[in-house]
Amino acid sequence: MENGTVQALILAGGSGTRFWPLSRKSRPKQLLALEADRSLLQTTVDRLAPLVEPPAVWVCTTRMLAEAVREQLPEVPPEQILVEPEGRNTAPAIGWSLRSMPEEVRRGGVAVLPADHRFADAAAFRATLSRAAEAVRSHDLVMTLGVTPHRPETGYGYLELGSVGEETTAKPGGLRAVRRFVEKPDAATAERYMRDGNHLWNAGIFVFRGTALLRHLARFEPEIAQGLEAIAAAPERTDEIYPTLRSISIDYAVMERLESIATLPLDCGWSDLGSWEALAEVLPAGEDGNRSRGDVLAIDAADNLLWADRGTVAVLGVRDLVVVRTDDCILVVPRERAQEVRRLVEMLSRRQRTDLL
Amino acid sequence: MENGTVQALILAGGSGTRFWPLSRKSRPKQLLALEADRSLLQTTVDRLAPLVEPPAVWVCTTRMLAEAVREQLPEVPPEQILVEPEGRNTAPAIGWSLRSMPEEVRRGGVAVLPADHRFADAAAFRATLSRAAEAVRSHDLVMTLGVTPHRPETGYGYLELGSVGEETTAKPGGLRAVRRFVEKPDAATAERYMRDGNHLWNAGIFVFRGTALLRHLARFEPEIAQGLEAIAAAPERTDEIYPTLRSISIDYAVMERLESIATLPLDCGWSDLGSWEALAEVLPAGEDGNRSRGDVLAIDAADNLLWADRGTVAVLGVRDLVVVRTDDCILVVPRERAQEVRRLVEMLSRRQRTDLL
Repeated sequence: MENGTVQALILAGGSGTRFWPLSRKSRPKQLLALEADRSLLQTTVDRLAPLVEPPAVWVCTTRMLAEAVREQLPEVPPEQILVEPEGRNTAPAIGWSLRSMPEEVRRGGVAVLPADHRFADAAAFRATLSRAAEAVRSHDLVMTLGVTPHRPETGYGYLELGSVGEETTAKPGGLRAVRRFVEKPDAATAERYMRDGNHLWNAGIFVFRGTALLRHLARFEPEIAQGLEAIAAAPERTDEIYPTLRSISIDYAVMERLESIATLPLDCGWSDLGSWEALAEVLPAGEDGNRSRGDVLAIDAADNLLWADRGTVAVLGVRDLVVVRTDDCILVVPRERAQEVRRLVEMLSRRQRTDLL
Repeated sequence: MENGTVQALILAGGSGTRFWPLSRKSRPKQLLALEADRSLLQTTVDRLAPLVEPPAVWVCTTRMLAEAVREQLPEVPPEQILVEPEGRNTAPAIGWSLRSMPEEVRRGGVAVLPADHRFADAAAFRATLSRAAEAVRSHDLVMTLGVTPHRPETGYGYLELGSVGEETTAKPGGLRAVRRFVEKPDAATAERYMRDGNHLWNAGIFVFRGTALLRHLARFEPEIAQGLEAIAAAPERTDEIYPTLRSISIDYAVMERLESIATLPLDCGWSDLGSWEALAEVLPAGEDGNRSRGDVLAIDAADNLLWADRGTVAVLGVRDLVVVRTDDCILVVPRERAQEVRRLVEMLSRRQRTDLL
């Protein structure tokens, strides 16, 4: 693998509900243009160039989303838009995607990236990714890019770093060993993590040689690996075999079990845009602190997120609300409770309101 | 005039903005079904029977609304749906409507009624109206029906009553003389008015012989009366003359200037439904105190008015809000500020957003 020739594998199969009612099963977050005219998926591809140009981009998505993904990414070779028969979490998805690549590709460095995150500073992101790819190339490491925490976030998992100088493997400049993956902490622990300089947010970004990752997967999850080999031997049996693979995340299946995993801290304005509130925090505020999209009228209203996907949103005398209007629905929720939108989606699901899901 | 043969003249030309975005110029409040399946105008006609049956109902409306009024009131003779050339306030509207009636009709009792008010107890309303009509028949009085105040309202004008026993004219049982019309009071004064039992809300409901009212109008506003006579003499000149008539309310033009005007108190659950908040107060509350119309989802939300004219309204974690969704627009405003919706309408007007007016 030449420096700079890392391939990107973008996981675009998610079906999150956190941007309901804008996000729907057939139009999940990664397909939405939340900050600009380009969707988060498109922005993920845009951000990679010139380090990774579209011919080196692979996308793993679902049947429901495949057509929209192809439409959004005409610059990515269509045969590199891989369509999972069924969502089985990230370990099968990554393993199957790597097995779907030509052997010479998966022998090289592959960066696994979520399709729906935000990086304010794309150049800084590419610089870090490039250093990680170089480390993978030189030392055959498995790497994860953790995010330098700027607040005591209790909603993310963390990477606990090894002591500086703790050698688990060769570490070129700046690399740190990951001692362990830690689950979402309580508030006091999160506060400590932020201060101690020894923890990073787990952002689900990995870089490795594809062949190495498949070797690790075969070691830790032999049944998944055998299933993938069976699919490779008889692709016509994909629909039969793939749904039987264990549904497990790459973190649990491989990363947390690895004897050695290295990291580089990412510090480039990352957000997972995990809720309307997270979006509000990164959008530029207009007068009165309102963040607006579309046709919005506001009088005596401050610090709201006002989103008119269609039609007009008019507010008067309200603060700190998320107000969203789609063609068929509106949502009103206090910003601080935006995470709870999933409760509305669950209610719709119980009521079998497929028209709104 | 026989007892019970009073005619009704419903003023349905209003173009209020208080129920925006549901109310529009072409679909003002009186045409909206706010409480039930029938519009306020239809309910106004329904409420009159059997005291006043549809063949004795007259409606004064505008060109913009005429077709919708005819559609909503197929039981009212179409020739009794009178179409003003232009809105010139209630004095010209009432005078012109009376002149448009056959002479034998306007010699009798005529009750002037707003098209967009609410009376919880229709039978009590009819009973009071019947007594007023009887008083008009027997004593040729001009009467106004005032509403017994149940709260210290500062948003209405009041009728100050003469002392009990103060005789301005013959008064059959229960009739009181109106000493004067008083403008919207401040809070302390409104409190006093409510307590002293000597004040009623001016609800814009009048009963008189049509010929008597025209005589008074000729005395106080001779130019209007002359204009109306000219129109009667040459109806083809209506469009030319009517717009030149002084735009003035019947209160200012006639009622407040009359030497003698009598009243009967109405106590039958009246509301002028003057705002979304006024509507919220009369709608039955569901669980958590929410008043809902249409397809509404609410979680941890209380005491809101949630109105889905089209599509779905979903709220979580909000209180005391008005949330309205129409086909093209949504409104979010605290209930206590619902009166200020007109400010949004004014903003739209300044921006020439005729699509939303």
